[in-house]
Amino acid sequence: MAQKPSIPKGTRDFGQLEMARRNYIFDTIKGVFALYGFQQIETPSMENISTLMGKYGEEGDKLLFRIQNSGEKAALAPEKGLRYDLTVPFARYVVQHREELSFPFKRFQIQPVWRADRPQKGRYREFYQCDVDVIGSDSLIGELELIQIVEEVYRRLGINVCLHINNRKILAGIAEVIGAPEMIVDITVAIDKLDKIGIDAVNAELKERGLNDEQVAALQPILNLSGTTAEKLTALKSILANSEIGLKGVEEMEVVFNELEIVDCKLNIELDLCLARGLNYYTGAIFEVKALDAQIGSITGGGRYDNLTGIFGLPGVSGVGISFGADRIYDVLNELDLFPKALQFSTQVLFATFGQDELHYALRWAKALRAKGIAVEVYPEPTKMKKQMGYADDKKIPYVAIVGGNEMETNTVMLKNMATGEQKQVTLQELIGNL
Amino acid sequence: MAQKPSIPKGTRDFGQLEMARRNYIFDTIKGVFALYGFQQIETPSMENISTLMGKYGEEGDKLLFRIQNSGEKAALAPEKGLRYDLTVPFARYVVQHREELSFPFKRFQIQPVWRADRPQKGRYREFYQCDVDVIGSDSLIGELELIQIVEEVYRRLGINVCLHINNRKILAGIAEVIGAPEMIVDITVAIDKLDKIGIDAVNAELKERGLNDEQVAALQPILNLSGTTAEKLTALKSILANSEIGLKGVEEMEVVFNELEIVDCKLNIELDLCLARGLNYYTGAIFEVKALDAQIGSITGGGRYDNLTGIFGLPGVSGVGISFGADRIYDVLNELDLFPKALQFSTQVLFATFGQDELHYALRWAKALRAKGIAVEVYPEPTKMKKQMGYADDKKIPYVAIVGGNEMETNTVMLKNMATGEQKQVTLQELIGNL
Repeated sequence: MAQKPSIPKGTRDFGQLEMARRNYIFDTIKGVFALYGFQQIETPSMENISTLMGKYGEEGDKLLFRIQNSGEKAALAPEKGLRYDLTVPFARYVVQHREELSFPFKRFQIQPVWRADRPQKGRYREFYQCDVDVIGSDSLIGELELIQIVEEVYRRLGINVCLHINNRKILAGIAEVIGAPEMIVDITVAIDKLDKIGIDAVNAELKERGLNDEQVAALQPILNLSGTTAEKLTALKSILANSEIGLKGVEEMEVVFNELEIVDCKLNIELDLCLARGLNYYTGAIFEVKALDAQIGSITGGGRYDNLTGIFGLPGVSGVGISFGADRIYDVLNELDLFPKALQFSTQVLFATFGQDELHYALRWAKALRAKGIAVEVYPEPTKMKKQMGYADDKKIPYVAIVGGNEMETNTVMLKNMATGEQKQVTLQELIGNL
Repeated sequence: MAQKPSIPKGTRDFGQLEMARRNYIFDTIKGVFALYGFQQIETPSMENISTLMGKYGEEGDKLLFRIQNSGEKAALAPEKGLRYDLTVPFARYVVQHREELSFPFKRFQIQPVWRADRPQKGRYREFYQCDVDVIGSDSLIGELELIQIVEEVYRRLGINVCLHINNRKILAGIAEVIGAPEMIVDITVAIDKLDKIGIDAVNAELKERGLNDEQVAALQPILNLSGTTAEKLTALKSILANSEIGLKGVEEMEVVFNELEIVDCKLNIELDLCLARGLNYYTGAIFEVKALDAQIGSITGGGRYDNLTGIFGLPGVSGVGISFGADRIYDVLNELDLFPKALQFSTQVLFATFGQDELHYALRWAKALRAKGIAVEVYPEPTKMKKQMGYADDKKIPYVAIVGGNEMETNTVMLKNMATGEQKQVTLQELIGNL
């Protein structure tokens, strides 16, 4: 036999159980998106290379997959690249179709993206992103609804989570009041690592990046801020008293927390001043969601951006969005054994037969059951009963309807419960009632 | 403003209405697949180039999109290509995972494929295929079930269709009895064009391809065969009396038509001896489905193959499959105005408010409605009523719940039916009842 075929490194095949589980995640999320009036769009897998280049930093440019027509001369072919994320294509979409869209534009998008990253555990070259955004409004109802969506998605999935929230304006205010407004990026990059490397290493990095001792000292009370959200916001108001942008950030957080109270949101939410998120396009609220019962990092994240479409020539369009990390959610549900058991089978009953006439009899029954919306299979040959039963076992089909001469005479089937081994003779009506 | 961004030629953005319609098609098809125990798999967008090359003929090789890592030297990079169809990746999947699969293996797969074809009307460089196959059994129940699936899918979609069926063994038998067994491919290629070019042109082509006058004459009664299916099969039995393979094909057709009668299949089916289908890997039944009320060619097609996985070193695995042409089905539904009207909106009610307090009031109502599974939106700012109403109009939201001071006092909303203009004051319970 020839060498077993394989797939490119960093890519995956999804079998039937994995697909059922992935669809369960996506369907759950889509169901919640729909309740809020978000509607689905899809963009092409390939974008013009000019759409993609320069949008993800120097490192990102290197991770783009480029596409070449097999028959074309490379020099003549218009350059294309595979989608690197859903954000840039979304911005391109909004600008290209702005005349047709009604704003605020609420969209979601669930599609694969590709990155020529070095493959490793949990990092793939092809993976799905699941983004939801509302664009064209600076109302904080956007933030509120995304938090409500997070609450409902994880309630439905049964995952206990904590949503960490912060605001880039607060971070800008902090940089301002410690006298280093131009160092906002350095400060956020450093304090974003607090969880991973600890306070001493963060302080060392801050100094390395150019903060002086006094500035680092001034940061400490902020990094150590504790208490309830209300207490933190009160403390921040006095810390940021001299920063207009900082106070604006505090006010935005107050509005969001007030609205969350109005809708009686039960989600575990922490105002986390060390949350920074790397992406520079965020300008307001930023979010990250962590599973409380699994060590896996952020499973959902996002924030407010004021100028996403500016890169394509349409400035001043504010939006807010989050992205659900399907692969990580999959791993959490798997680790905590939270996938519904029913996903393991889709067929409810297999007909197993002793002969050709029985097979034809089973085909008629199968048709009647399918007309009732019941998923059934007929083993396609009246082969050895053991083989037919083995098929039901392999596919985790919960019932087998056995058909022999006796059943045909009495217009019944012998229904076997594959879990208990129990058997009983049932009529078609009884079978429908049983399933 | 900068130049409006665009997408590569031959690719498409799908907006919200198109996505709703496409999802309607895919969900309908998936719902039917599930009733028969077919389960979904997905394979990576990129395959090793060795998996793809040489599988689609010389022309196909030229239409492959090749992928290059942006940071890699072309010469060093392992070559990859984008999926050209779902059949070859499926064969690769079956061989690679054969130890984990239980046979007969019933799978469906709905994913995009890419071809570097010259883009033109109705031909895209990225489009979805929707394939369903059962592999690892030569039982004709496979053919039967696929025909039943075609019947049910098009019944649900409301499209009147005719399924054309033929059998490659019958075609082989015909080539044999006219004394040109080695010309089966030439004969099928020529007669496949009967519909398009007419009998005279077909005969001319047959001669060009090397049949002599006697052989072409011998073909005529077969090409002109008419009557009921039973009559055609009876006639074929005498025509093919000296061809073992031909008689086998006739027998297979008899079994399938007999089973179709057993399950009382209502589908319009024609035994069409001029149906040949180009792909050489078919070895038994071949199908094509045409919409009766639209001029668009085949909207579904497929057949039986005996050696799909042989190319990857696993010979002798028989299977049968069909592929639904989503883009063409979309066009038919559109042309015949058969898409459900309800797809045009997903949000059922929009809350429009006169002030901040009203907005908060609306947020609470929205939460109560969503808990009942009703999709609602709250216009995110208490801006001009005309603007809020315009948003509902644009998104085709059927109801607007208007909230002013009076409504807040009486614990109601003013519900406006956007189609009739009718307004009435309703309580939360009445609103839920209304929707």
